[in-house]
Amino acid sequence: MADDGVLTPEQAARIRASFESQTMMTTLGARMTGIAHGEVRIEAPILPGSRQQRGFAHAGLSFSIGDSAAGYAAVSVVPEGHDVLTSEMKIHLLAPAKGDLLVATGRVIRAGRRLVIVQADVHALEDGRTSHVAFMTGTMIPIAAS
Amino acid sequence: MADDGVLTPEQAARIRASFESQTMMTTLGARMTGIAHGEVRIEAPILPGSRQQRGFAHAGLSFSIGDSAAGYAAVSVVPEGHDVLTSEMKIHLLAPAKGDLLVATGRVIRAGRRLVIVQADVHALEDGRTSHVAFMTGTMIPIAAS
Amino acid sequence: MADDGVLTPEQAARIRASFESQTMMTTLGARMTGIAHGEVRIEAPILPGSRQQRGFAHAGLSFSIGDSAAGYAAVSVVPEGHDVLTSEMKIHLLAPAKGDLLVATGRVIRAGRRLVIVQADVHALEDGRTSHVAFMTGTMIPIAAS
Amino acid sequence: MADDGVLTPEQAARIRASFESQTMMTTLGARMTGIAHGEVRIEAPILPGSRQQRGFAHAGLSFSIGDSAAGYAAVSVVPEGHDVLTSEMKIHLLAPAKGDLLVATGRVIRAGRRLVIVQADVHALEDGRTSHVAFMTGTMIPIAAS
Repeated sequence: MADDGVLTPEQAARIRASFESQTMMTTLGARMTGIAHGEVRIEAPILPGSRQQRGFAHAGLSFSIGDSAAGYAAVSVVPEGHDVLTSEMKIHLLAPAKGDLLVATGRVIRAGRRLVIVQADVHALEDGRTSHVAFMTGTMIPIAAS
Repeated sequence: MADDGVLTPEQAARIRASFESQTMMTTLGARMTGIAHGEVRIEAPILPGSRQQRGFAHAGLSFSIGDSAAGYAAVSVVPEGHDVLTSEMKIHLLAPAKGDLLVATGRVIRAGRRLVIVQADVHALEDGRTSHVAFMTGTMIPIAAS
Repeated sequence: MADDGVLTPEQAARIRASFESQTMMTTLGARMTGIAHGEVRIEAPILPGSRQQRGFAHAGLSFSIGDSAAGYAAVSVVPEGHDVLTSEMKIHLLAPAKGDLLVATGRVIRAGRRLVIVQADVHALEDGRTSHVAFMTGTMIPIAAS
Repeated sequence: MADDGVLTPEQAARIRASFESQTMMTTLGARMTGIAHGEVRIEAPILPGSRQQRGFAHAGLSFSIGDSAAGYAAVSVVPEGHDVLTSEMKIHLLAPAKGDLLVATGRVIRAGRRLVIVQADVHALEDGRTSHVAFMTGTMIPIAAS
């Protein structure tokens, strides 16, 4: 973890570059809209191609952006030259994800040398109203970037 | 649950039709390649657009096809006229998902009136070799189809 | 759920009586120290008989009081004449549970007709200092009390 | 992991000694009844002091013996001089745990250098019949024994 708990511009740039290289995020139309030390926000529209059988967002969309938000929150606190892999993640789907946009916020709960424990919340925006559609808790493993 | 534990052709047809209506599955290139009473198999190539920062399949791909496989396994055992929603799902990522194809097999562990407990395994195929890349356990809620 | 989101004295009395009938809580030395609509607190000393191989509280102690706290938080919001059963629960153990006392706080995240989604946090108190040792998320099923 | 995948008598003895030092297991009346490379079995009676409000075994009993069984399964595959701590564990409760005895079987799913992924099943025995009452999946962290 950075000594001072502050995200440097270099770290932020590396996180953005890594996110840009996740083609799954491009496929889902996702954008990274917030980066801080220990917290990252990713947004995605509910595209016509991201739905389940009832026309709501597929659980996989909430999971994907929540997982990436939580993962990059973890990256923001691990030593330079490391990124992370998801070891496990649990998602609770609280309400149907319908509307225009999903916003996932990932946060670090506990940063250890070997594991980073994370959580994420996903909200749906519809006609200016916000609803809490999912929350996630998981385990990220820091690994030396190749 | 069907009295005789056998999937009727009508149920299989409804499950296939519902799967076809999940646009997320089309986006990910997924196909349903097996349906039985309490067990469903879904396969997806690791498309160029389904990857994370290291070029492996994004956790969201394994999750998405595993969630759908587990969900349709649940649909195969709930009363006619019902489908299911995912309430919660945990995924363990056991190894990097690399290769040509991911195969998710969802199974019903316990079918109750109000909840169906499910699991799924995801394997990756690469050059004819198979590796176990993820397993999932979760809770599906039967709901009357509209 | 109570119309007004307020716990009645009758509900509180029923929750306390049910808690008193959980002999596991007595075995672990646990006491219910707070009840509100949607939130319940349970405390337990780290008894000599509640430990793992290193002398810290066994994960089963944190789980047991966290599960009961989350469960009674759910009971506080379900209709009269119902209690709940745990369907599933995930616990993250954040730090060794050492000290004099564990305090578990359970909260309702989403109360539905068929499921109540809950979480719990467990803190350890040692020499006047508090540390966050566990957090849990889970699913409770309301059932008509016999 | 032992090169030959065989549990040595020394390892088995260390595992038994560590289990004996978990006072929580003594409190719950638990005994270790099987040890192999990557698999451990722990049994416990449903004592009068281990129950929830309906007289069934408290979820904390199933969790405690399942967690210890999974943990010692992990210990059986980590390098000599290490034990493990539970990082996270999810339990699904499939049926009320009633009867005379609970039997938890823990197994290693994937043993890595930094993490060991485990699962456990808990069965209840009542009048000679067996029912599957819980299954668990979790993450153990190997640590150098002090």
